[in-house]
Amino acid sequence: MSTDTDTEAREQLIDLAAQFYDQFADGDVPSMDVPTRTKANIEYDEEENVWVYGDRTSTRSANSVRGAEKLLKAIYTIDFLTQQLEEDRSSTLRELYYLSESWDVDEAQFSSQDESNDLVEDLEIVSGATREDFHMRPEESGATIMGPLKLREQTRRGERVIHCQEDVGEGGYQIPNNPDTIEFLDNDAEFILCVETGGMRDRLVENGFDTDYDSLIVHLKGQPARATRRITKRLHDELDLPVVVFTDGDPWSYRIYGSVAYGSIKSAHLSEYLATPAAQFIGIRPQDIESYDLPSDPLSDSDVNALESELDDPRFQSDFWTEQIELQLEVGKKSEQQALASRGLDFVTDTYLPERLDEMGVL
Amino acid sequence: MSTDTDTEAREQLIDLAAQFYDQFADGDVPSMDVPTRTKANIEYDEEENVWVYGDRTSTRSANSVRGAEKLLKAIYTIDFLTQQLEEDRSSTLRELYYLSESWDVDEAQFSSQDESNDLVEDLEIVSGATREDFHMRPEESGATIMGPLKLREQTRRGERVIHCQEDVGEGGYQIPNNPDTIEFLDNDAEFILCVETGGMRDRLVENGFDTDYDSLIVHLKGQPARATRRITKRLHDELDLPVVVFTDGDPWSYRIYGSVAYGSIKSAHLSEYLATPAAQFIGIRPQDIESYDLPSDPLSDSDVNALESELDDPRFQSDFWTEQIELQLEVGKKSEQQALASRGLDFVTDTYLPERLDEMGVL
Repeated sequence: MSTDTDTEAREQLIDLAAQFYDQFADGDVPSMDVPTRTKANIEYDEEENVWVYGDRTSTRSANSVRGAEKLLKAIYTIDFLTQQLEEDRSSTLRELYYLSESWDVDEAQFSSQDESNDLVEDLEIVSGATREDFHMRPEESGATIMGPLKLREQTRRGERVIHCQEDVGEGGYQIPNNPDTIEFLDNDAEFILCVETGGMRDRLVENGFDTDYDSLIVHLKGQPARATRRITKRLHDELDLPVVVFTDGDPWSYRIYGSVAYGSIKSAHLSEYLATPAAQFIGIRPQDIESYDLPSDPLSDSDVNALESELDDPRFQSDFWTEQIELQLEVGKKSEQQALASRGLDFVTDTYLPERLDEMGVL
Repeated sequence: MSTDTDTEAREQLIDLAAQFYDQFADGDVPSMDVPTRTKANIEYDEEENVWVYGDRTSTRSANSVRGAEKLLKAIYTIDFLTQQLEEDRSSTLRELYYLSESWDVDEAQFSSQDESNDLVEDLEIVSGATREDFHMRPEESGATIMGPLKLREQTRRGERVIHCQEDVGEGGYQIPNNPDTIEFLDNDAEFILCVETGGMRDRLVENGFDTDYDSLIVHLKGQPARATRRITKRLHDELDLPVVVFTDGDPWSYRIYGSVAYGSIKSAHLSEYLATPAAQFIGIRPQDIESYDLPSDPLSDSDVNALESELDDPRFQSDFWTEQIELQLEVGKKSEQQALASRGLDFVTDTYLPERLDEMGVL
């Protein structure tokens, strides 16, 4: 099942190798330019509404032994990836690191997995293809969907047509590593609700929130995997459904929302592929902690530092976020989403979410 | 769908409350005896082949303010759990902790989640029922099965019949929080292969190991959740299939095997419900690191300490484990299961696993 995307990704990789070849042929020292990956070099793309890399680049050049080794590793990796695509196979980032031990030139072998991970990101940025296009799988994905959606997944064993309520157990539909193998067939959904914790996801499913409110419940499992962010974006774009993100009320959870909506610094080159700028934050907001008198914990020093750094983060510059973060610093408290249980197990589905969805204009 | 188990668990809880009532009525200070939960108090049960608590007990008595508060919390929790069972609902341990904020007596409220978690374990031990019988869900489970097995899951939305190859995507069948809602209908499986990491689980599925070797691939996801251990035990007992456990080659992974096979100190009261004493360890064995010349890392100080403590752990007293652990301490190395990729992506499915399964008499 080699697809057009596979062929395209393969060609983009071969183009990269050809570029080194041409540099050699012209008598130039081979080199590769990669955008600098720091917060100072991410910019807001007004057209796409996501954060992307700016103009600063670093050059990997063969004019030093270290630089030459980096390019050698890139070439061996390109060779492996093109072969993997040709054979329609896939592998994990960790397997790539270990596989390099079998390469015939010692200098091409990776000395750590960070090195091979970084190289694959460089290749994504420079080729314009994604890791998924290269058939590189993550170590874990494992998030799930529950809701009124029928889809077709193209697996290595043939097509599977699955309704994400009727054909799955209580655990829901398991999102595959590459959600671009999925085609959405039919749905009765009104909106998408992304949920941070497993405990809350199970609460919503037990209370039948997906059937009562025609919602697709996407479990984020903490900081969401790329597959989870990708399918959320596709559900939004292709089914034209609003997305709301429901997390704990602390600075680390706001970053979970941020990575769904605006992408992350680490994967700013993939924002157009992974980010859903229209995603809205439903809560837990610092003001909810006060208005609902939720059980809370005091902010730790690292929470305070994280909140202060969010005040400077380009992704949190709206009036909403400035107000909420300043309020939280003032009251010095944080709450988990499951703290809503202090008002009873049905409060979240009978009161909290319907009220917030109404306020936000989603219902 | 209140079941017989629900009614039974409810009665066991009410019996506990009745016991306090009788103690009061007899003019005695109410108290509750709980087995001491330390390594020194776990013993090998020759009949069941698992580790269980010994005879040492601690007494929770109302003869001190602290003890009285503990019993008060137990009574409020019993009241909540019996009501939950009556209404056929469920909740998470964290929700229980937060819910206690809504209780009308301040002294009954939990001061930390550790306290409520411990209490639920005490109630399991004393009542002889399980947390699942009380309808308490974990925060996360999320492990999956892929293989030639057809099952029926009883969900709140009705029955679902699912074949764990034909009716699922590449992500596999998601094990529900309480796998006792599952009935096994039909299978063509020869054995069960429990796998520690997601990367290796995906490798086996991509290489079609479940179809080529008629195996049920159970993803452990690191230290396995209770649901994963429970379904493994049921698959073994009810389908009469051998179980092999495939992990990284380090002391922490041997504990993963240990918890599948012999249970854990924390849940020794549930060994008969969760442990599969017939489960065999397939690897990565320290001798594999040497024989296959696998990429390895040096043992850290904490690895060495963990190995030394395993030499004293009653679960690792066999000749096999003593030999392997001593060998590992001698060579000072550890390897991950994905390190097998250094011999190519198919080595694990074409060579390593078939050879080991043959040696072990499983194939």
